[in-house]
Amino acid sequence: MKVVGIITDFGGERDIYTGVMKAVMTKICPNISFIDITHNIMPADIKTGAFLLKSSYRYFPKGTVFLAVVDPGVGSSRDPIVIKTRHYYFVGPDNGILSLAAVDDGVCDIFVVQNKRYFMKRVSSTFHGRDIFAPVAAYICKGVNISSLGKRKSYFEQVYIEPVIIEKSVLEGRIIYKDFFGNLITNITMEQLREFTEGKDFYGVIKRKKFVGLREFYTQNEGDKPFFIEGSFGYLEVSLNKESAAEYFNIDKDEYPKVVVKKVNTRR
Amino acid sequence: MKVVGIITDFGGERDIYTGVMKAVMTKICPNISFIDITHNIMPADIKTGAFLLKSSYRYFPKGTVFLAVVDPGVGSSRDPIVIKTRHYYFVGPDNGILSLAAVDDGVCDIFVVQNKRYFMKRVSSTFHGRDIFAPVAAYICKGVNISSLGKRKSYFEQVYIEPVIIEKSVLEGRIIYKDFFGNLITNITMEQLREFTEGKDFYGVIKRKKFVGLREFYTQNEGDKPFFIEGSFGYLEVSLNKESAAEYFNIDKDEYPKVVVKKVNTRR
Amino acid sequence: MKVVGIITDFGGERDIYTGVMKAVMTKICPNISFIDITHNIMPADIKTGAFLLKSSYRYFPKGTVFLAVVDPGVGSSRDPIVIKTRHYYFVGPDNGILSLAAVDDGVCDIFVVQNKRYFMKRVSSTFHGRDIFAPVAAYICKGVNISSLGKRKSYFEQVYIEPVIIEKSVLEGRIIYKDFFGNLITNITMEQLREFTEGKDFYGVIKRKKFVGLREFYTQNEGDKPFFIEGSFGYLEVSLNKESAAEYFNIDKDEYPKVVVKKVNTRR
Repeated sequence: MKVVGIITDFGGERDIYTGVMKAVMTKICPNISFIDITHNIMPADIKTGAFLLKSSYRYFPKGTVFLAVVDPGVGSSRDPIVIKTRHYYFVGPDNGILSLAAVDDGVCDIFVVQNKRYFMKRVSSTFHGRDIFAPVAAYICKGVNISSLGKRKSYFEQVYIEPVIIEKSVLEGRIIYKDFFGNLITNITMEQLREFTEGKDFYGVIKRKKFVGLREFYTQNEGDKPFFIEGSFGYLEVSLNKESAAEYFNIDKDEYPKVVVKKVNTRR
Repeated sequence: MKVVGIITDFGGERDIYTGVMKAVMTKICPNISFIDITHNIMPADIKTGAFLLKSSYRYFPKGTVFLAVVDPGVGSSRDPIVIKTRHYYFVGPDNGILSLAAVDDGVCDIFVVQNKRYFMKRVSSTFHGRDIFAPVAAYICKGVNISSLGKRKSYFEQVYIEPVIIEKSVLEGRIIYKDFFGNLITNITMEQLREFTEGKDFYGVIKRKKFVGLREFYTQNEGDKPFFIEGSFGYLEVSLNKESAAEYFNIDKDEYPKVVVKKVNTRR
Repeated sequence: MKVVGIITDFGGERDIYTGVMKAVMTKICPNISFIDITHNIMPADIKTGAFLLKSSYRYFPKGTVFLAVVDPGVGSSRDPIVIKTRHYYFVGPDNGILSLAAVDDGVCDIFVVQNKRYFMKRVSSTFHGRDIFAPVAAYICKGVNISSLGKRKSYFEQVYIEPVIIEKSVLEGRIIYKDFFGNLITNITMEQLREFTEGKDFYGVIKRKKFVGLREFYTQNEGDKPFFIEGSFGYLEVSLNKESAAEYFNIDKDEYPKVVVKKVNTRR
């Protein structure tokens, strides 16, 4: 049984696109177990897609093939690529979607996918997920050596999601994902927060609203104020107890506002 | 092939949480077949979750492991538990989510899950679904004896969803679930209705709107009025032909109004 | 491993209905691999369901059993049927939902499903998906000969989705599906368009708004105007680059407006 982890901006099983990709893969390699990571990335939001792939890949069995189709440039000049990392394979467009996970696991080899033998017979210009990426993922599951897929490449597009220290006491990050519960996931890791705050008091600001406190778990906070919490994937989150932080800060579904962490000068 | 049935309040494949739990389980036990029951429970709505698990568990093969993650108290003091029933295993928090199904099938044994050997190495305080419940479910699939998971327990939290007879001619129930078609599923079983009405005429009231009639199937009712119907899981439902009863009664997505059944005194 | 492709109007994994059908099938035949085609058909929209099944079936492995449950007449007189085509089996109600795919692949045999041995013991009048269609699909996977399911039938309900030429220079089609990206999929095939336009210039009209141009891929169009594009399933689509054509034309979710193609008389 081979595992394929799938991440797209198709909006889940709403449309037939995900099902058709699974059908194509099953036709090529019958014993694949599919795990949908998410299809809920806003259309063409490569950064968030890359972030979510990075957050989830390590929980999969070694040898898993990841199929990432967030591909606003489909049909134009961006390359389809395969990245072999220390423990996994990543298949998708060369637009950065694969980069955070691949770099995190350690890149071993990169190939441009060119060999039409491993494509659908007729390649459309609007759905490479079905016509190129899915069949290539299935052939890797079937044991095809990735060096036969095309020519080696030495680099790939990368996205950057790092927060920045804009002055000594101000760390500026961004909300990078809002989950179904309304939790706001930032791009600030717990390590970055600790290193920046050096044990000093700090508060957060989102859309001019201040809030304080770093909680351990959701119900620890009894009131109705937002608070910081260590998210389950190692990033700082902003939450409310039993309520939606996204609603509290009035954040639109395609809005990714800044989150500012300010150290309090306690010397004064 | 082992079967794991999954029920959560994660909102489907929107977020990466369900996919990550499946990845964790597949890593521990490769030959699991996952069946998503639903992820569409309103966040923290334990009663409805327990009701839907009870409505669906019996259709699964014997030996199925059910993983239920509706867990508003994650990180606080509620226990993670495993219940072995006559035909199944149920894994989840001890907050009542498992209780209706487990009692219905017949409880054989209950264990608090404590043995960290069967957890993820690092247990977060915000995502026990990934760090405790999913790995435990996978180890049960792998054949681990549940007595090795922790210490035996003699009771567990239960939820109650029974309707009440508030006066001789008035049965008061509640809408417990609204499906995608807008059908309103009540907590009144067909047996309870028959026993209460004793063959006499009756009518229903929801939010001060009266309606009459018990239909056998949806298209039997030609008009545009709501009617009672025997739901497919044995509970009384309120429906409209080809329209949404939830819209007709103007019911919000997090509103579970009372439904009153009144017997008509035909003697007078 | 047998494959079952599932298409319903249940709204995805929102409700427990899809999960319960998979449970029923797994109980009867343990080694089924389920592929969800879509559950996002508007309730009771048989035409769109038939169109989407036709668009996707050919990507599945030979021998796949398709389970189609778009069944507004459940419990009334419409027959449950099985159609054997050249490469596949189709199971569902005889209301047209199966017809476009079955005719496209080539019908070999049709049976009314009557043999209660292959149903759930108790058949409800509201959920034949669980009680009749799912078990029948699973028994076909298990190898049951379809001639033992019921009596042969020589015809079945068909739906028609063909565009019409209403005058020499006007081809009138319809939007038959709006995908998650807001692309508008028409019922006009590329062949029909080419045959009609005969290489002449043409423009489109939707809800009194004119637009021109046939693009090869989405990002080819730099502006913010809608354009025609060859969709990935062989049908003409109307799209905007990086925006939703459905929003541009202000199309409601249950609205399927006409799309008119007009040839330009270049002789004059």
